[in-house]
Amino acid sequence: MRGKFISLEGGEGSGKTTAIQYIKEWLEAQDIPYLMTREPGGTPLAEDIRQLILSPREESVNDTTELLLVFAARAQHLAEKICPALEKGIWVISDRFLDSSYVYQGKARGGDTSVLDQLSEWVVGENKPDATLLLDISVEQGQERVQQRKHQDRLDKESADFHQKVRDGFLERAAIEPERVKIIDASLPLEAVQTQIETQLVALQTMWSGENK
Amino acid sequence: MRGKFISLEGGEGSGKTTAIQYIKEWLEAQDIPYLMTREPGGTPLAEDIRQLILSPREESVNDTTELLLVFAARAQHLAEKICPALEKGIWVISDRFLDSSYVYQGKARGGDTSVLDQLSEWVVGENKPDATLLLDISVEQGQERVQQRKHQDRLDKESADFHQKVRDGFLERAAIEPERVKIIDASLPLEAVQTQIETQLVALQTMWSGENK
Repeated sequence: MRGKFISLEGGEGSGKTTAIQYIKEWLEAQDIPYLMTREPGGTPLAEDIRQLILSPREESVNDTTELLLVFAARAQHLAEKICPALEKGIWVISDRFLDSSYVYQGKARGGDTSVLDQLSEWVVGENKPDATLLLDISVEQGQERVQQRKHQDRLDKESADFHQKVRDGFLERAAIEPERVKIIDASLPLEAVQTQIETQLVALQTMWSGENK
Repeated sequence: MRGKFISLEGGEGSGKTTAIQYIKEWLEAQDIPYLMTREPGGTPLAEDIRQLILSPREESVNDTTELLLVFAARAQHLAEKICPALEKGIWVISDRFLDSSYVYQGKARGGDTSVLDQLSEWVVGENKPDATLLLDISVEQGQERVQQRKHQDRLDKESADFHQKVRDGFLERAAIEPERVKIIDASLPLEAVQTQIETQLVALQTMWSGENK
């Protein structure tokens, strides 16, 4: 039986790292074999590409360049890691995936959605996530959390306007594909966030078990 | 007056490095301001991408990944280096450009030409080279020259069959766009190669001066 592919999405400071830790514990409690990964990245080459994208540099990074780098890393990630695991029946949980491209390279930077659709069709095709958990939080709350971190990358330093577009972009993705993208209110206290995640995971697992009978 | 954009193409061992040296001397003798560059590469970020593409690594590089990396580097190269120079009236000479993608990622690796056409339209658009000099040499002669070099990269280690596809691919490109792509017989002795290059450069310059009158 093919594994399930779940992506986790959300703006900076939405609590993805904590959520992933919780998802991990849940999968272990259910005895589900899983693989945790992230984008951009996930394989040595894709992680090298990630470094190119996220490192601050003097040269301004052309928007098209950034978009193509993200999809180059994704093609490698799918071919070398995600698809082989799913075929073995292993669940794959990815910290960010395709929606982040629509949001960061598309919505937030004003990229052409038709180009994103073409790249998505070509690079991802049938390998879209089976489900996506979107951690939604206001820009103010997200920024407060980011500022408590020591290390900041290129994206963390963007303006509040940029981060607002990111939030709006994710909510638009959820509106376009409500069946796949489940919104988690990440502004609530930790326990309430975990309860929402658990509720969604249980519902998905129930649905998927039904499909396989 | 916008500068002219000339690309130099050819398989491994076709003598591009020597040809570039000769083109440089010719441009200097004509007092034409110029910029020498290369692909993949040409800017610090694009050179970093080049390293990712050409370094031998354990992980097998997915064909789609390689193609997207090449076009990511190209988008950066065009935006940050080639277009600004051409706008200032500077001629740009690039060691490899778009034809190499059709040949290496397309023909030689069996990539989808329609995808290449889409990427080309989107990333390069109107910024195709005004002229391309194709250094053509048999696979045997090219390989002999490569084996005399100390440093060999990932592409140098491909099979003779691969290099034959590369040669055929370049000749196909010349057949499709004979106006733009000028074939230079690179199997001849150095002086004869230089004479052919000079003849082409003089003809192009004469044509372009005519257009601007």
